Amino acid sequence: MKLDDIKKLHQKKYRSQFGHYLVEGEHLVLELQRAAEQQPALRQAELLVTETYADWQSSLKTQLISSKKMAQISDTKTPQGIIAVVPVAPAPANTKADIAVYLHEIQDPGNLGTILRTLAWFGGFRCLLSPGSVDPYNPKVVRASMGAIFHVPIELDVPLDSLGGRFSNIASLDMSGQPLTDPSFQNIDCYVFGNEARGIPHEALNDLNATAFTIPGSGTIESLNLASAVNLCVYERVR
Amino acid sequence: MKLDDIKKLHQKKYRSQFGHYLVEGEHLVLELQRAAEQQPALRQAELLVTETYADWQSSLKTQLISSKKMAQISDTKTPQGIIAVVPVAPAPANTKADIAVYLHEIQDPGNLGTILRTLAWFGGFRCLLSPGSVDPYNPKVVRASMGAIFHVPIELDVPLDSLGGRFSNIASLDMSGQPLTDPSFQNIDCYVFGNEARGIPHEALNDLNATAFTIPGSGTIESLNLASAVNLCVYERVR
Repeated sequence: MKLDDIKKLHQKKYRSQFGHYLVEGEHLVLELQRAAEQQPALRQAELLVTETYADWQSSLKTQLISSKKMAQISDTKTPQGIIAVVPVAPAPANTKADIAVYLHEIQDPGNLGTILRTLAWFGGFRCLLSPGSVDPYNPKVVRASMGAIFHVPIELDVPLDSLGGRFSNIASLDMSGQPLTDPSFQNIDCYVFGNEARGIPHEALNDLNATAFTIPGSGTIESLNLASAVNLCVYERVR
Repeated sequence: MKLDDIKKLHQKKYRSQFGHYLVEGEHLVLELQRAAEQQPALRQAELLVTETYADWQSSLKTQLISSKKMAQISDTKTPQGIIAVVPVAPAPANTKADIAVYLHEIQDPGNLGTILRTLAWFGGFRCLLSPGSVDPYNPKVVRASMGAIFHVPIELDVPLDSLGGRFSNIASLDMSGQPLTDPSFQNIDCYVFGNEARGIPHEALNDLNATAFTIPGSGTIESLNLASAVNLCVYERVR
């Protein structure tokens, strides 16, 4: 890609137009290289490095650029000097083996990054995002994912009402419902989680015949953090 | 407190000198008022409100201030117009009923806030922080805790090597160890978690005869998020 186009990858519009996103810093680039060993699609990623990283070892195509150009591309105030331009890998078709986690209008980049980390840690999950969710290829999500973004199949703009045609046992996580430890929790093929502030749109869920589950608590506070709730459900599923 | 002193509560030094911290915004102040119904110490909190909140209902002592003064005290660019000055509640002595979560040099305010939320959600836990940890009364932690800070007993500056004299079964969460599902996990009275980047200082743990536990994963990525790891351990303990 041309440098002028690469700069535009800070904007969601251009990430989706060009099908690429940016991965910044030594740690994330190492994770990318490690992932590329297993995943041929990631071998199309390209590195941009400044003089500081002129000796960087990589089998990825690498281009040396000036610090000034790096500053224009970087998302941070003091760029480390190493950025990868990574193609968005289309999620492979889902199989019976993988379990879907559907996030409805998730907003917080840190939450989404943390959730991807949990899904990659346990393995066997895919992440479906509703329209209006934060973009997973946003640099803050990529950073919070600590490289997990390279390992989790992600589908964008999946409408909530499309789940019924695709999954046979849908669960919603809610303030009331059966406890996670109920054996029926293990038969679910799609777990639906609501937005951080507004929760889940109940009417749409009724149409999907979703079973409500809840994480039993002490009742002291209103809610768990969204990423924590996903985390516990995923753990309970694979435990 | 005088307004000039209240302004200083943005700095950790003064929070610890004055024994007070700031709680900003309608949602958190509501959580504070709800918590104050159960906890007499929190009834000493004082509210500062601008004209916008002149009709705010509260049994807490309330002072009307100008928008200009509010802007000087507020942590945000566009203050909502309602802030509470809250006394730091000393943690009650720990009993056999509560389980300690020890965080060694935790740095990320969002992680600590999320962890407090998890501990409050399940109940029966206290949070011990090592020297060099992020201050739990930092506005970012308070915000991320979503009010959980009012419900979890917190102890500051607890040295790692003091745990041996106080707890009889210490666990450390690590990259290798027994799985959480091992029955011995239920006998632990203090769970130790390491810093986000550096993990746990192993020598100190050896001196404490800590048992290492691990969260089994797919091996795809290096680590779980710290708050996610705490979350799973707490869940496994109360499940």
